[in-house]
Amino acid sequence: MARKPRVVDIPSIGALDRAGGQLGRQLANALREAVRKGDLLPGDPLPSSRVLAQSLGIARGTVIEAFEQLLAEGVLETQQRAGTRVANSLAVPSQGESSRGRHAVIAQPLSPPARATAFAKVAQEFSPLPHVPFAVSVPVGSAQPGEAWRKLGNRIRSRGKGSPAGYGEPQGIRILREAVADNVRRSRSVRCSPDQIVITSGIQQALYLCCQILFEDGDEVWVEDPAYRGITAILEHVARGARVIRVPVDAEGIMVESGIAAGGQARAAFVTPSHQYPLGMPMSMARRNALLDWAGKHNAWIVEDDYDSELRYAGHPFPSLQGMDPIRVVYLGTFSKILFPSLRLGYAVVPEGLEAAFCGARVLMDRHPPDFDQHVLAAFINEGHLDRHVRRIRGVYAERREQLIEMIGRLVPPDIAWLQPSDQGMHVVLWLAHRVDDRAIVAALLAAGVAARPVSPMFSDGKGRPGLILGLGDFDRPRVEAAIRQLTAVLLAIGRA
Amino acid sequence: MARKPRVVDIPSIGALDRAGGQLGRQLANALREAVRKGDLLPGDPLPSSRVLAQSLGIARGTVIEAFEQLLAEGVLETQQRAGTRVANSLAVPSQGESSRGRHAVIAQPLSPPARATAFAKVAQEFSPLPHVPFAVSVPVGSAQPGEAWRKLGNRIRSRGKGSPAGYGEPQGIRILREAVADNVRRSRSVRCSPDQIVITSGIQQALYLCCQILFEDGDEVWVEDPAYRGITAILEHVARGARVIRVPVDAEGIMVESGIAAGGQARAAFVTPSHQYPLGMPMSMARRNALLDWAGKHNAWIVEDDYDSELRYAGHPFPSLQGMDPIRVVYLGTFSKILFPSLRLGYAVVPEGLEAAFCGARVLMDRHPPDFDQHVLAAFINEGHLDRHVRRIRGVYAERREQLIEMIGRLVPPDIAWLQPSDQGMHVVLWLAHRVDDRAIVAALLAAGVAARPVSPMFSDGKGRPGLILGLGDFDRPRVEAAIRQLTAVLLAIGRA
Repeated sequence: MARKPRVVDIPSIGALDRAGGQLGRQLANALREAVRKGDLLPGDPLPSSRVLAQSLGIARGTVIEAFEQLLAEGVLETQQRAGTRVANSLAVPSQGESSRGRHAVIAQPLSPPARATAFAKVAQEFSPLPHVPFAVSVPVGSAQPGEAWRKLGNRIRSRGKGSPAGYGEPQGIRILREAVADNVRRSRSVRCSPDQIVITSGIQQALYLCCQILFEDGDEVWVEDPAYRGITAILEHVARGARVIRVPVDAEGIMVESGIAAGGQARAAFVTPSHQYPLGMPMSMARRNALLDWAGKHNAWIVEDDYDSELRYAGHPFPSLQGMDPIRVVYLGTFSKILFPSLRLGYAVVPEGLEAAFCGARVLMDRHPPDFDQHVLAAFINEGHLDRHVRRIRGVYAERREQLIEMIGRLVPPDIAWLQPSDQGMHVVLWLAHRVDDRAIVAALLAAGVAARPVSPMFSDGKGRPGLILGLGDFDRPRVEAAIRQLTAVLLAIGRA
Repeated sequence: MARKPRVVDIPSIGALDRAGGQLGRQLANALREAVRKGDLLPGDPLPSSRVLAQSLGIARGTVIEAFEQLLAEGVLETQQRAGTRVANSLAVPSQGESSRGRHAVIAQPLSPPARATAFAKVAQEFSPLPHVPFAVSVPVGSAQPGEAWRKLGNRIRSRGKGSPAGYGEPQGIRILREAVADNVRRSRSVRCSPDQIVITSGIQQALYLCCQILFEDGDEVWVEDPAYRGITAILEHVARGARVIRVPVDAEGIMVESGIAAGGQARAAFVTPSHQYPLGMPMSMARRNALLDWAGKHNAWIVEDDYDSELRYAGHPFPSLQGMDPIRVVYLGTFSKILFPSLRLGYAVVPEGLEAAFCGARVLMDRHPPDFDQHVLAAFINEGHLDRHVRRIRGVYAERREQLIEMIGRLVPPDIAWLQPSDQGMHVVLWLAHRVDDRAIVAALLAAGVAARPVSPMFSDGKGRPGLILGLGDFDRPRVEAAIRQLTAVLLAIGRA
């Protein structure tokens, strides 16, 4: 039988801090550490709880508590009459080496998994912009939802609807789905019942769900060229089995005939008909008809990303593709632009029969949207605040947009940068002279405290045209003017270099 | 030249509701509808705005507004001197048929995509339980975070930190990551800096991220048998390229030697060391060492799902695997159990070097976690409320657990169902007599107003052992007793049948 160590044989125990509280836990940690370091070896018997308590000058109950913890962990074991000892099973894997030392020796610096490198690049590309001009949709000043939003929140939490609750509906709460269905019917001629609404964490999650559900590996998928990086990055890094066909856009939107020529058998098409992203033109009725015609003949799904149609400054928003063909169009909307991005609430209107699939795919991603703000948003819509808010910010952003365009015209030399014409939305595209590296410009701008996104990565390989996305935020006039002067300086400096 | 229709030739226009407001929009809709229905054909000229305004008895500006809208949409076109007409381009895709009729004829009822059916089954399996016994973690009574949570929310919103904002950090706000890092260091001996914390929408999203980043298609992956359906369902339906090796568990947790025999070259292992899900035993120190030993030799990642270790009722929680080997263990925690599930906030502690990858994969899923509740949670932790809350609910759930076990012992005949021993967590496993279909039992219970989850789907194919997961909620004694009587009645009825 192995010697029974005296307390002095377990040096870690000297470190007990009698004033520090949780003595039982401290003792358990100390004994565990002693086993790890090899001060105590597998099979070593421990002093009895009475002896150990006496020598440490602590209560016997404290020692028993520590022993029980270590017995439960499998660090110690007891056998009838043989008392408590270090578990023999610990000897097997570590073969006598101390555990900590063993890992330090064997472990090589782990090389990151292959996909980690690609995802790290995505993180870099999508890193959030500081909340300065020209970050998009920064709710400062009069673009904020304001007091109504705050008061509703306090009220709904105290009434209990939005208070802490158990697991909720993957599809989103019913009252919000009803409010959204009613809203998109009125404002966007989307034809749907609340059962077809799936509340998402913004349009990004809705796009992700579409990529999981609507097609299989090997299927062809149309994506506009240029397009939102939020969709092309999913297809590059997640839904990697799809065969992506980039379909060019012209002044009328996606060139359906080009799509058909390149891949008429595609299973899905991702489009931004109200306001092509990033270029800004609406899709003409002729193209809408042609797109639906093709989709109808080939049983393809259309994903209609309607990210900011509420912000059309002239005339009414276009009626949705979904309203023209509800059985094959998935309509995506968001509250990020008209309320605020940090809310992370958007929605998909899905064709009848696909509701459960969207819920199933969503439940695996993150179970369900948080409850609280869903209740606040539902009340905000139902009590008429959203309509009033949209009318107000339409005016705000129209003015900011005019201001921005006027300043660019006045301050930016037209031979180095010029605006893409458009009449809606929350951003403008500023084209840059050919061969300028818009990524380098963006980095230089960021260093100078100005936020922008490069346009060239939105084109398919080899077609990248340099430009900048300048988002509208409700920043005041001097701040925007200062940012444009800074922008001009950067463009001139890089142009010269 | 085509005839210029009189107003009476456009029947839809009769439907203008002069009291309904937005006349310009109504007129645009009516004209668009007329084109769709074929009342107006491509090339048809329209009456001049003056004539149309006169005959409709509305302002000419209203007609011009409608025309401009339809010109922008491409429904109408103008040519110098030729006036306004229905766009000829509309003729191309529809070949003379009316658009609506055309789609109704061509469109077959779309068959759902292949993956939709599988995801619909997932939705069914994961459909949320009603908030009645034995749904897990329903924050009623004294298990609620209560006034402190509500007051913090109101305060933080009015101070502005949690108020509406632009796009935020995919990794989560810094102040919350600091609070979480400090908390897991103290309570779970997790060794990390705030830079290694990634705030997620609960453990489900963290598991999903791990499946995207840590291995490639074709790689082997260990998963416990039985295991949480939240991980096995991701591997079945999303990360389908992985070769899943189910590794059995015994009283000491995952049987590492079995895993090595079945697939020693695996790239990752998903484990629940504190409290095996669903069976409840902790992983012994010997197995922890063996698992880390294997992982160290084969450069494998360990995912440590620590979903409810705070709720250990005897002794202290086990120290984490992560603390033993921070370079290869991804540690996952959640606030769903100790606060409330509808919050949707959890976290991953990722090895150094993988932070950016987790952010990149997350940004494609949903950009970032909503801001508001992150600020509230950070304050809740930093002001000491979380520690107090955990101490309180540990007592609450310990009592509820004792109560449940006592009632089951008293009311459920031991030959039809018996409890799996365990000493921690927010659920118990009730084993059922062999060959009972636990899914059918669960359906019958649900019809009787009692919530439970079946255990058999948590085992790999062919090994499903029937049982029920009974979650702890803070329901009062009479309610729980009524639910157990109901449960007994259902078990006896199905047993007889």
